[in-house]
This record gives sequence, structure tokens and C-alpha cells, in this order.
Amino acid sequence: MAPLDLTADVVSLTRALVDLPSESGQEGRIADAVEEALGALAHLTVDRVGNSVIARTDLGRPERVLLAGHLDTVPAAGNLPSRLAGGRVYGLGACDMKGGVAVGLRLAATLPETARDVTYVFYECEEVEGERNGLGRIAAARPGLLEEAGLAVLMEPSDAGVEAGCQGILTADIVIEGARAHTARAWQGVNAAHRAGRVLQRLDAHVPERVVVDGLEYREGLGAVAVRAGVAGNVVPDECVVTVNCRFAPSRSAAEAEAYVRGLFPEYEVRVTEVVAGALPHLDRVGGLVAALGAEPRPKLGWTDVARFAALGVPALNYGPGDPSLAHTAGEYVPVGHLGRCEAGLRAWLR
Amino acid sequence: MAPLDLTADVVSLTRALVDLPSESGQEGRIADAVEEALGALAHLTVDRVGNSVIARTDLGRPERVLLAGHLDTVPAAGNLPSRLAGGRVYGLGACDMKGGVAVGLRLAATLPETARDVTYVFYECEEVEGERNGLGRIAAARPGLLEEAGLAVLMEPSDAGVEAGCQGILTADIVIEGARAHTARAWQGVNAAHRAGRVLQRLDAHVPERVVVDGLEYREGLGAVAVRAGVAGNVVPDECVVTVNCRFAPSRSAAEAEAYVRGLFPEYEVRVTEVVAGALPHLDRVGGLVAALGAEPRPKLGWTDVARFAALGVPALNYGPGDPSLAHTAGEYVPVGHLGRCEAGLRAWLR
Repeated sequence: MAPLDLTADVVSLTRALVDLPSESGQEGRIADAVEEALGALAHLTVDRVGNSVIARTDLGRPERVLLAGHLDTVPAAGNLPSRLAGGRVYGLGACDMKGGVAVGLRLAATLPETARDVTYVFYECEEVEGERNGLGRIAAARPGLLEEAGLAVLMEPSDAGVEAGCQGILTADIVIEGARAHTARAWQGVNAAHRAGRVLQRLDAHVPERVVVDGLEYREGLGAVAVRAGVAGNVVPDECVVTVNCRFAPSRSAAEAEAYVRGLFPEYEVRVTEVVAGALPHLDRVGGLVAALGAEPRPKLGWTDVARFAALGVPALNYGPGDPSLAHTAGEYVPVGHLGRCEAGLRAWLR
Repeated sequence: MAPLDLTADVVSLTRALVDLPSESGQEGRIADAVEEALGALAHLTVDRVGNSVIARTDLGRPERVLLAGHLDTVPAAGNLPSRLAGGRVYGLGACDMKGGVAVGLRLAATLPETARDVTYVFYECEEVEGERNGLGRIAAARPGLLEEAGLAVLMEPSDAGVEAGCQGILTADIVIEGARAHTARAWQGVNAAHRAGRVLQRLDAHVPERVVVDGLEYREGLGAVAVRAGVAGNVVPDECVVTVNCRFAPSRSAAEAEAYVRGLFPEYEVRVTEVVAGALPHLDRVGGLVAALGAEPRPKLGWTDVARFAALGVPALNYGPGDPSLAHTAGEYVPVGHLGRCEAGLRAWLR
């Protein structure tokens, strides 16, 4: 394998990263390449936790900032190798988020002198269950390493604009009970699926709130993502489970979100299977960066790892190349213009 | 294997049949035993189709009747071997329907002289998909053999009473469409599960009809037996399928039942996956038998193979030992009293 050339332009570097497959759990090769390339730079101290690589400047600046991007991708979908066409880099992970990683690597390699000390984090397993997430592993293995930064930039695709904070996620099963019976004598039972009609209609009629935080409007959401009922073709089902996914504004805590959803379905068993708070935009603390980037901040509706930084007490925002709605699609791409804009914006701020 | 002793009492014979496992598709041994036992009787002509056995008297009577029972059972559920306790024979198939088969075999063996010619049918694969059903295979392989009977008694469990006719069955998928979206931007999609709420509530509010045929009230039914929706935990589902099971009175044709269900859901795609008509009670044609058995006929709500006989132009009724609600349960049993009552009732009528 050819080593990564961090002096190459950001487009070439993006393509080289795309062509280094790194589905979640299989980031060994790309982490090796990143570690080797960064390890060759005298101005950086490089550390590794699992298949995550951390590189730090140590210039004695009073302030430290952190740039982070994940190395892993979802599974391939016939979208390898990379190709450049019409001003876009196509290929697995081009958008989510090897374009952002390329920007981060370019900055790490070409900015020996910065106004603030910088910690660069390139991590594993963002696309899978949270326990495997590289940031979590780093936080556990190197206490204080992430927290020493006063500000974090997560280079997830955000259309090369600033997406501030992020909403929380709650997933719950609403369990509707009934009583089995043979369908030839259905009146002897209670049809749980029929009873679920009320739950689904309540969800249909529900008007999610719009919550303004720091002047940004977070549009909440609550809806069914799955419905399951069925015992056999001739049996009245005695259980119907409606799985709901709730997106809640960062001003609500996980406990508040849970109480909110339970309050909407007081007469049913509600089993919360996942709840993670979002991240406040903290425009007061990230304002300098936002101004330097010259971007009008927008609210981030999807959950991202900025919430992990928020939980560590590090205000963070999303800023990276690529359209987030293309993430995980077979046709994902990153515009060359985004790559240049993000690299230039962060370079100006860091220098 | 000891041969079946058809001169033994009906309880011993029921237990011997239970102890001869014959899950659907594995009726070879029990069919061999039945064929061998009946073949030894001079007054019967024995024929075999697959693992179904047909035995006929040929006394030149002007009228012929048919007694039928299936040899197969659902899979075992820790309920073998048979045991006799508290006046009941317990064990796999005791109720559904080796008790009825024992009654039929006893009559076949011990009634060389009957007022009507008799065709006894012991058949395979009643508990599985209709194409494998032994009666269907006999009808295809021996045209006219079943149809020559003027009347059929299906010895399915009916609490040792007469259950006349049977209701039809229709199964259909109601397909509710939507449009996918990421749940963080749910308003960009249309949630098919939410739309299904209206379908389920309509089913919940639906009042099935009660249809009187020959003075018997057939209570219809229509309800969901399965609901399926779900793409991924963060995706607004674009399809929800509600599977409904309809039980319809024997006075409706399959086409009428289909039009009825479609008419209830005119705004959705309705995919009919199964529809089989029921069987009219034909009390005018089975009245003599009903009177001989001294039983007050009740309507049969579940579908049984009497509908196959009806489709062949042979009026049929259900009359057999055992509580039909115990069929397919691990604790199924047949009361000894039912065995004796059914054997005596049919013996009196045939003789």
C-alpha cells in the first residue's frame, strides 16, 4: 500500500482515503496509514487507541481546540473505487466523511504553527452501536485528552456550513396488549393490532414542537418507525408493538424527553430502548469560530458526536464538506468546492 | 410394529393411533397400518392414494355415504405417548383427530352389513397447505370416488355434536403507502404506519354480520392478524401492510367475500392472498342423519374440509369426538364419553 501523501491536494487525498476501504470494525489499514503519515510530522505527537489516531500540537498556547472526523464508513454499495466527475468526488464515504477527514489531515500536515494548540482526532466505529464508538474508547482510555480542548469542530458533512448543536434521540416501544383467540371466534379475544390504531392516529395527529435555542429553531419529531403484530394467520394477535423515534431539542434533557413521550401514551406500557441527549449550540462559546468561518449557523437536526463532546463539557459544532442527506446513499459524493472552502475556512481560523 | 387391532375397544384404538406419530408429511407408517388392518377385512375394498387410504363396502345399496378423518397431526409438543386419565385420552392428536379416526376404523371393521354403502376415507396432510391435502389428491387421482357419496360425515372434533356447514376464509394484505424520509426530517416524508391507524381503527369499529342460513346463525369475523412496517430505526416507513383474516358465512361466495372486503377499504390496495368458500349446512339433505344422531345442529364457524366436499357437490357435516378449541394445544385430549357416543351414534345410523 502506498503511504498517504498529506502534501497532496485535498481532492487527491479524499480519493486516496475513499480507496482505502474502512467499513466499521475494519479500520486497521486506514488507521495504520493515518498514524504513519502523521507520525512522520515533527510538530505532532501521535497517540493511538484501538483504531483511532490522535495527533496533538504542543506549542504552549493558552487555548486548545479539537478537530475530529471518523474513519469508518457504512458497508460498500457498489460505489468503489472513487471517481472524480463534474466537480465532485464520488465513492463510498466521500461525503460521510472522508472529505472531512482529508481536510483535517491536510490541516494537521501543513500547519506547524497555529494560534491555538490543536488536537486532531481520527476515530473508528462512528456508524455502529454507540458502545463501539472511537471517541468513547478514547475518553475511557485517555481521561482528559478530549476534555482539555475548549472547543471542538466535528467535520461531519454540513454543506460546508456551520450546524450548531444537535437534537437528542429517544427510541421507545409502545406495547399494546390484547388477548389471543382463534379468528373463527374473534370476539373471544381482544385484538391488540386494532387497539394500536389509536396509538398510530395519535402519532399522526401529533404536532411536534419547534424550540428556539440561541436563536436557532430546532424542529422536533415523533413518529413510528416500526409496527409489529402477528402470531399466526388464524390467531387474534395479543400484542402489538409500535416503535417510535423521537428527535428532541437540545434544551431538553434525556429525562425530560422520556417524560414527554411517556406523557403522550399514559395508558400503555412504554419501553424506552435508547435515549441520548443532544448538544446545545453554545453560540456564546463557538461564536468566534462561527464569525471566522463567515457562516450563518443553522440548527443540526440529526444527532451527531457533537453530543459526546457536549457530554464531556466541550462545546462543539458541525462543520464539514458534503450534503448530509447524501450520507449512506450509494451515490454519495462530496463537491470539490466544499473541500476547498472548508480547508480554507479552518486554515484561516487556526492560523 | 404391532398391527392395529380394530376389534379392540375405541379407547385402546385411539391410544394406539396416538402412539403412532404421524406429523403431516410423515403419515407413511400410520397409513401402512391402516391399509393393512382394513385390507384384512373381506367386506371392504381398499385403495390407496399417496398416504391416504380409502375403504369401500359394495353391498349394492341405492345410497352411499362417506366417513372421513385425517391421519396427520401438527408437530408434537411434549405430548407423547398417550395416557388415559380422568376419563380422557391425552396425547398428540387425541382430539384432532385420532379419536375420530378410531371411531371410523371401528365402524369400518365391525359393520359388514350396513343400510347404506359406506366409503371410509383416512387421509393425509390436512394440517398443512391446501395443495397437499389428501382429499384433494384423491379427488384428482380417482375422479368420482368421493363424489359418488350422497352425504359425507367429517369426523373433526365437534364436541360429539353436529356442526353443520362451515364458514369461508379470506386473507388479504391491505397495503398502505407512504414516502421515506430520515426521522430527523420526518416532515419530508409520509409515514405509512401513521396512515395505517385509520385502517386499524376501521377494523376495530367494524361490526361483523350474523347471517342465518337454514336457521343456523353464522357469525362472521374480520380483523387484523398481522401488521408489518419498518425500514430502519431512523427512517420514516414508506409501507405498512395490515393482514386481515375474514370469516364469512357459507351463503357468500368467494367472489362476494372479496368484493365485501375490498369495499371496506376502497382507498387502499387490497391484495387477496387466500380465499376459500365455506359450505352450506344443507340441513334439507343431512336432516336424516342429524335426526338419527339426535343432535341439535350448530353452525361450524371454523373452516373444515366439509367445504371440499361441498365443492364436489357432496353435502357434509362435522361430527366427531373432542372439543375443537383444544385442537393444536399441547394439552389436547378426547373424552372417553365422546368416543363412545360418536361410535354409537354413527353405528345406529349406518346399521
